[in-house]
Amino acid sequence: MAHLLGGIEAGGTKFVCAVGDEDGNVQARIKFPTTTPEETIAQVFAFFDQYQIEALGIGSFGPIDINPDSATYGYITDTPKLAWKNYNFLGALRDHYQIPFVWTTDVNVAAYGEYKKGAGIGKKNILYVTVGTGVGVGYISHGELYSGRSHPEGGHILMHRVEGDDFAGVCPYHGDCLEGIAAGPAVEKRTGKKGYELTPTDDCWQKEAYYLAQACMTYTLTFSPDIIIFGGGVMKQSQLFPMIRTEFLKLMNDYVRVPDLDQYIVHVALGDDAGITGSLLAAATVLA
Amino acid sequence: MAHLLGGIEAGGTKFVCAVGDEDGNVQARIKFPTTTPEETIAQVFAFFDQYQIEALGIGSFGPIDINPDSATYGYITDTPKLAWKNYNFLGALRDHYQIPFVWTTDVNVAAYGEYKKGAGIGKKNILYVTVGTGVGVGYISHGELYSGRSHPEGGHILMHRVEGDDFAGVCPYHGDCLEGIAAGPAVEKRTGKKGYELTPTDDCWQKEAYYLAQACMTYTLTFSPDIIIFGGGVMKQSQLFPMIRTEFLKLMNDYVRVPDLDQYIVHVALGDDAGITGSLLAAATVLA
Repeated sequence: MAHLLGGIEAGGTKFVCAVGDEDGNVQARIKFPTTTPEETIAQVFAFFDQYQIEALGIGSFGPIDINPDSATYGYITDTPKLAWKNYNFLGALRDHYQIPFVWTTDVNVAAYGEYKKGAGIGKKNILYVTVGTGVGVGYISHGELYSGRSHPEGGHILMHRVEGDDFAGVCPYHGDCLEGIAAGPAVEKRTGKKGYELTPTDDCWQKEAYYLAQACMTYTLTFSPDIIIFGGGVMKQSQLFPMIRTEFLKLMNDYVRVPDLDQYIVHVALGDDAGITGSLLAAATVLA
Repeated sequence: MAHLLGGIEAGGTKFVCAVGDEDGNVQARIKFPTTTPEETIAQVFAFFDQYQIEALGIGSFGPIDINPDSATYGYITDTPKLAWKNYNFLGALRDHYQIPFVWTTDVNVAAYGEYKKGAGIGKKNILYVTVGTGVGVGYISHGELYSGRSHPEGGHILMHRVEGDDFAGVCPYHGDCLEGIAAGPAVEKRTGKKGYELTPTDDCWQKEAYYLAQACMTYTLTFSPDIIIFGGGVMKQSQLFPMIRTEFLKLMNDYVRVPDLDQYIVHVALGDDAGITGSLLAAATVLA
């Protein structure tokens, strides 16, 4: 018997809301830009009010508070999107719908979608990295949404700089962290062009591949996932994948054993639907 | 009713074997240098053969194979200590003793000891970092020994180099990874002296604090632990702790919320006994 579930992929630039079933099949969806919390949440309500959903999975941009014991559980915390800073996102939804919720990050639901229906099928430890307007990291550990004290923010790790690259980086918090030198805005600042306007052989991609390979090294040496799945706008540059694998092999220098790299560093299988699919699948985990 | 348990802290330079109870209390112990596998394992047997132990917890140097489905489960894999490379450590013990085993890394048992009886009491997610002849990282996630596909090897992450520091690093695999620029041999190579021969105000410690703070940043943004506990010979330089906290604060730049730093970045409470205590406590988890 199919259940009706809701999913929200709340990104910093756009929201996707969907209703669907516990297998992650979308039955209806809507997409709109992320504006102010009040305006945006009104659109969320207008959509879901049309349906009788039984549970709602929310993958939000962040950082967010995911500690149920915290006074600010369910809040967006220190985002550079100032209108959303300290916004009680989950609280607003809970006041409106008396159903169970799953509250996690946008990248965690994408990781969950890939785990259940995408490139991570059959694996237990799935690292998902989106490289777009920012760099975000979601993780599924032994089949569950990972959290420690809080959720990973692995896009903001500092990087060993490649020789001769003195680009200062664009992260407002950390300058030349991974996001600051490798996300879409960094590509644009380096080259004066959007990523999709560059040729696949532009010099910029070699640096990009080096930094993403180094990130894969760091994630391998910390989380030790079964697979690293890349999504996001920048990763539509498919020439990056073989370059990242080559750089990763050089950097690791055979120190720890990893799977065949064609199976280890891969493109998101569900494409832009990973997040919304995962948010429905996450909602299914709290059905009574 | 007290059980008699065994614990092994198998380090690259020395082995500690102990018998004790399920509260981690050591009743007898022996320590000897790590030589060849044959010689060393004979000493392990000679010690434990005197007792009727019911379970054995092993924390080994590595990298090691901790995947029960792997053909080389229980092996030490790619260590630079060539005599131990591809040695079936757990297999040798299993052939000799027909009891349950816990097989993990030396740093994971130290993390477990600190979780149960040390600085991590009352917390769930404990990151343990040893800085000695190498840099090793153990992790307790939600009260359990963490593993992904394999165990963390977080001492070998690459680092953003501090301005003006062009020290090449001494890691045979990665040159200037964290271990290559911050472990004991790196301190000695930089200064021509052992760490304990330097004054607490030597310039070297400022760089050391910066790299360890950056490592804390990376672990915070990946694992997101409740606490980061430092042990190992280099961390006996207690002047490092306030310096690491100051650098960490600057690097993080308020991006994610962390606990009070005096409670977050701390010294190992069990001192040199963290590993052997943790190996006994780990053994207790597999008692029938």
